[in-house]
Parts: sequence; structure tokens; C-alpha cells
Amino acid sequence: MKQPLSTHFKIGFLGAGQLARMSSLKAFELGMQIAVFSDRPENEPVQFMTPYSFSGSFDDVDAMVQFAKTCDVVTLENEFIDSSILKSVQEKSGTPIFPSPDSFSLIENKLIEKQTFENAGIPVTPYALIKSADDLKTFGDKHGWPYLLKSSKGGYDGYGNETVKSLDQAKEAFKNLGGDDNRDIIAEAFVDFTHELAVQVARNKTRHVVYPCCETVQENHINVAVKSPAQVDEKVRQRAQQLAIAATEAINGKGIFAYEFFLTKSGDLLMNESAPRPHNSGHYTIEGAIASQFENHVRAVCDLPLGSAELRKPAVVMINLLGNHKRKAVVENADEAVAEPDGHLHSYGKLESKPGRKMAHYTLLGEDMDQTFERARKLTAGIEI
Amino acid sequence: MKQPLSTHFKIGFLGAGQLARMSSLKAFELGMQIAVFSDRPENEPVQFMTPYSFSGSFDDVDAMVQFAKTCDVVTLENEFIDSSILKSVQEKSGTPIFPSPDSFSLIENKLIEKQTFENAGIPVTPYALIKSADDLKTFGDKHGWPYLLKSSKGGYDGYGNETVKSLDQAKEAFKNLGGDDNRDIIAEAFVDFTHELAVQVARNKTRHVVYPCCETVQENHINVAVKSPAQVDEKVRQRAQQLAIAATEAINGKGIFAYEFFLTKSGDLLMNESAPRPHNSGHYTIEGAIASQFENHVRAVCDLPLGSAELRKPAVVMINLLGNHKRKAVVENADEAVAEPDGHLHSYGKLESKPGRKMAHYTLLGEDMDQTFERARKLTAGIEI
Repeated sequence: MKQPLSTHFKIGFLGAGQLARMSSLKAFELGMQIAVFSDRPENEPVQFMTPYSFSGSFDDVDAMVQFAKTCDVVTLENEFIDSSILKSVQEKSGTPIFPSPDSFSLIENKLIEKQTFENAGIPVTPYALIKSADDLKTFGDKHGWPYLLKSSKGGYDGYGNETVKSLDQAKEAFKNLGGDDNRDIIAEAFVDFTHELAVQVARNKTRHVVYPCCETVQENHINVAVKSPAQVDEKVRQRAQQLAIAATEAINGKGIFAYEFFLTKSGDLLMNESAPRPHNSGHYTIEGAIASQFENHVRAVCDLPLGSAELRKPAVVMINLLGNHKRKAVVENADEAVAEPDGHLHSYGKLESKPGRKMAHYTLLGEDMDQTFERARKLTAGIEI
Repeated sequence: MKQPLSTHFKIGFLGAGQLARMSSLKAFELGMQIAVFSDRPENEPVQFMTPYSFSGSFDDVDAMVQFAKTCDVVTLENEFIDSSILKSVQEKSGTPIFPSPDSFSLIENKLIEKQTFENAGIPVTPYALIKSADDLKTFGDKHGWPYLLKSSKGGYDGYGNETVKSLDQAKEAFKNLGGDDNRDIIAEAFVDFTHELAVQVARNKTRHVVYPCCETVQENHINVAVKSPAQVDEKVRQRAQQLAIAATEAINGKGIFAYEFFLTKSGDLLMNESAPRPHNSGHYTIEGAIASQFENHVRAVCDLPLGSAELRKPAVVMINLLGNHKRKAVVENADEAVAEPDGHLHSYGKLESKPGRKMAHYTLLGEDMDQTFERARKLTAGIEI
């Protein structure tokens, strides 16, 4: 690979949303240029940040090859492109893609992902591949109702998931999720947990750095906030970090990776989901850590030395700011939050706001977790987007 | 002005170098779009960061009006455009420019600048407007030889300045600087100083924040490093901050401003130069302060609340990384610096490196100034650009 600390080096992003945007800001700091490939018809956040903007479908190898040929390295902000397609793009363009297509093939869909991590000795949420109504009943009998049905490929933030309370509901959901059309559907047991934890790991070709174990705060199944470090026993946090490192090694991952865990009532950690990219649970690292997940994403895929994942303050809180209105995007009533010392607003550059859409986030650094969390919630409560 | 926390808000930069680039990164974080107007024939750093790139001369009002009309607010990264031109651009485009043309008119050239600050009670380096050979002799007789001759308009980083040791040299320099062609030339006495200090002030329409008084380190008349806070008496630092605030108020400044002072051997502070824009002496604030000079630049010109100027660590050191070679720009031998915990490399996205050209900088945060400075110098000593 060309020496990356140069304006003559270009990093390409497949996907043009806020994750690629925040990574791009760090690529710019290091002096690189960026290019972006978007699969959306409307203008996306990163497209406002570069003269080098490509559009097309994530199935269209030729379009992505054209894009990749203009770049020195390509990375991704999602996991929805088939590894075989990524492999073709890499081979035909001659431009390396990281995380590699081989890494992607090991987490290709939820079934393969669970098998990969299970084989690496990492405890995962109980699951099964569902092929028939019988399978639906068997799973319920074994793990109890309700449980979750998920389409194995695609789906995020609750989309592509259904909670089923009975066999009838399960059959209906199986159909809705495309099970009758031969889409792989997996069942997942509900886990009785006390905390949802997350860990980010950055890994380049020679080493890794692991971020503190943080805690995601859910309301109505929506992740509304992150606290770092997680307010759980130090041993639990260390164990989560160890599992996250093992998972990254299991897929020979190069880039930034996020892992979500359930901490069960009995004190066990079960891996819930993984993401081979910057993740919402790691947004707090922009100011909260010495080097952010985005900076280490860029560094890792460019084979630069990794930066420190150490926290800057004892308590870091990130609040997700979701759209409240369907309108042209604008952040209102944020003056108090913006004025707060060590409070940091990040707005994603989306054109349109919609209720529930991730539009921005707010990070507050402090000395005490409870106070910092309460203060961050208060400062952001009146924000309208 | 339109509500600035929106993708539908565009901030325009007159000038496309590293100062506009680092400001743009902060504008992006706040969700804005950016546009840029460059007066250079080659591609400039900010032009790689936006699809909205304009080119033209800084004398060409029509070209700048066209640019300004696409923006919601316009700001500058240099002080080389006449205030009358800025006023025309503002009036004809209907787009506000900050710092305002009125503020610029008060620091229009080195002569007016000194008069403005002198009138506000701020001590400045002894100076005189030079009209003739007689004036050259009178100044030397009064303030001693050598002294400095400067063209009143333009000039930076030692360009447009000459040190003169005798009347003959002074006459020659006067001619070289354009004095015979009716360019205003001013003479400035050499000051016997122990430290060169600098302070940044951000000011919006309702309030200001002032950064710590820092210290610039010169070698062969080139600013090679900055230490913050300055290693001088706390009272001197406070006095420098007070003078910087008074200077910003004297020009009713809205934006970010930097002031350089000499600390004389007798303990007095004399203002040397001012800059109505982000300044090299404030680059350390990107990681060194809670909100950087670039963030507060953007906030101030957009009438957003200002961020905290407090230091993140007791000792912050910034090392300027100048080009060593005439070649395509690339930063080499920087692995150790990049790997250092709380060491931060910023590369400016310039295409070509030249010996002495400002290409990048490196910031290191630490607990002790002497150790941090020594470490930063060591880490950057081998970097080649």
C-alpha cells in the first residue's frame, strides 16, 4: 500500500452515512483525501465533504470497481454487501478492502456470525436456524416464549427482527421476514440480562487496542445513551474486553469492530451482535478517548500505528439525538447543550429529519457517572430535530 | 442568520489553506456544509473537502459575490483582502462576513492596526511610518540599529520584512519593499525580549472566551513550536489575556483572533502582531483545549454559544512540521510520533512539499512542560516531509 500520510493517498468509503462521515473527518486530519460510494438516491452526509462522489447499487460490482480504482484502500460503514461481491471488487480493482472480504465471509450473516464466534469459544445468545413451523415450535419449547425471530442477512436497529409470543405469531413473523421465500431465519432466545455492554476493538496488521467496556442504555428497545465505563464489576468489563479481542482475532479483523454483550442475571456474558465498522456504542470515543474509534478505524485500515483507547475523563456519556419531526434537518434548542463545558454536539449532515432517525449525538465528559448522565439527559431533553 | 446547526446551512471560507481546512472539520462536526473560494491556481487543501469550490482573485468582487451568495455566512483565513472589497461583497451578496469588514478596516494594514490598538491603550512595539530617507535615519537615531522595515499591507512569516543595520541597508530595503512605489512602509524597533507570547480570543455577539497565554518558540526567526501555558509568571499570562480581550473589543471582533506579544526584559508586554483568524499559535488547542480555536471560530461567526478554552492537560506542546524536500507531499518516519499516547499528527492536505513550507503539525499533551517539550521534539526530529 502507498504511504498513507499523504494528500496523494485516497481512502474510499462504501456507504456515505454518519459513520463514514466521522471516519472521514479523521482521514482529513491525517492529510488524506477521501472518496465515497453511496447506494442512496438522495444526497448523503459524506457527499457534502468530497468532490469524489460515486453512486450505485451495492450489488453492482462494475460500479464499485470503478470507484475502488480511484482509491488506495477501501473500507465500509455497513455489513450488507456480500463477501463474494467485495472479493470481486478487490480483485478487479486491485485495491485492498479492509476489513477484508475473508473477514466478512466469517460474519456474512447472523447464522455464520454466531457459528464463527461459537467456534472461537465465545458464548453467544442461544439460537437456531429455523426451516419450518416444527423448528419454530421446537425452539419455543426448548428456550421458552417469547423469543426473537431475525432475518439472517440485513436488518439493524430492530428492523428485520420480530418478537414472537406464540406459535401462531411465530408462523406469521417467519412469513413476514421472508422465511417462506427461502430467506434464512434464525430464532434467538430472550436473555434475562441486567446490562447491555459493548466493546470496540481496533486491529491493524500487527496489533490491537481495545476500548473500555461501555454500557448501552435502552428505552423501548431503542439505544438512547451510552455510559463509559460500564457501571458493572471491573472483572466483567475485563472479560468483555477479552471476548471482544478474541472475536476480532477469530475473523482476522483489520479495522474497527464493535461487540455487544448481554450481562445475564447469573453474571455471564453472551455476545449478542457484532459490527465490523464504527458503531453507535463507540461514538463517545470522539472526545471521550484519546484516539476515537473513527481515528483508529482509519489508522487500522491504512496500516498506521494505532492510537490510545484510554478515557480522557472518569465518566463519559453519549446521548443519541433522534429526529422528532419530519422536516428539513435542523437542530433546535441546543444552546445550553452546546455551551456546556466539555459537552460536544455532533450533527450528521443529513438533509431530512424523521421521527426516530439518528440525526446527531451529544457527548458529555465528567468526573462522576451518575451526575454526568443526569446532566447530559437534562441538557439534551429539550433538543428538537 | 439562518439557524446554523443544519445541513441546510453553509459556511463559506475565503482562502483554502490549512486554517480554513481545520475550521471546516469543526463545521462538519456541527452538521453544516462548507464552500470555499481559493485564489490559487493549484488545488488547495479545502478543495479536497467539498463539492462547492470557487476560484478567483481576492480583488474580484463579482467572483466573490457569486461565491458568497451560495453561503449563509462567510469568513476568512487571511487578512489580505481590502475591507472595502469585503464590504462590497457583503452588500452585493447579502451574506454577512465575519469578522466584519468594519473590524477589518481597523486593522487594515500594520499602520492602522498599531494605531487602533495604541488608541485602545494597548502597548505596541515602537514604530513609525516611513516616507523618506530622512525618516529612516530619524527612526534609527531614536530607536537604534538594527531595526525592522515592513510593508504595511501583506507579508507574513517573515516575508515582506527586512532587518536593517545601517542607513544604506535601510534605503535598499525601503526600495525592495516597494516604498518608492508608494507602498506604506513602517519601521519597527527591535525589542529586547525574553519570551514571545500569544493569546487567542473567540468572540461572538454576546460574549468572549480567552485561551491560555502560550509561548512561541523561535529558531532562526521561524516559529518551530508552541508551549501552553507559557512558562512565565502567572501575572504576565493574565495581563496578556487582558490585553488580548481589550484588543478584540477595540475592533468589535466577531470570530477568532490571535495576538502576539513580546515580553521585554523589563517585564513589559508589547503587542507585536494580531491576526483576525485562527493562528498557528493556537493549533495546539485542537486536542489541548476542550474547544479548539477552530471550533470557536466556527461557533463565533455563526452566533453559536462558545466552547470552553480550558486546557485538557497541564502541558501542551505543538511542533510545526515544515517541508524538508521539494516533492509530492508525504509525511515519512512518523510512526513513533503517531503511536505516542496523546500525540496527535495533523497533516494539511497540501499536494506539494517545499523546504520550509508549513505542511503539518504535531501536538503532544503531558503533565510536565519540560518533559513534554523534550519528548515532542524527539518524536518529531526524524519526520521528513
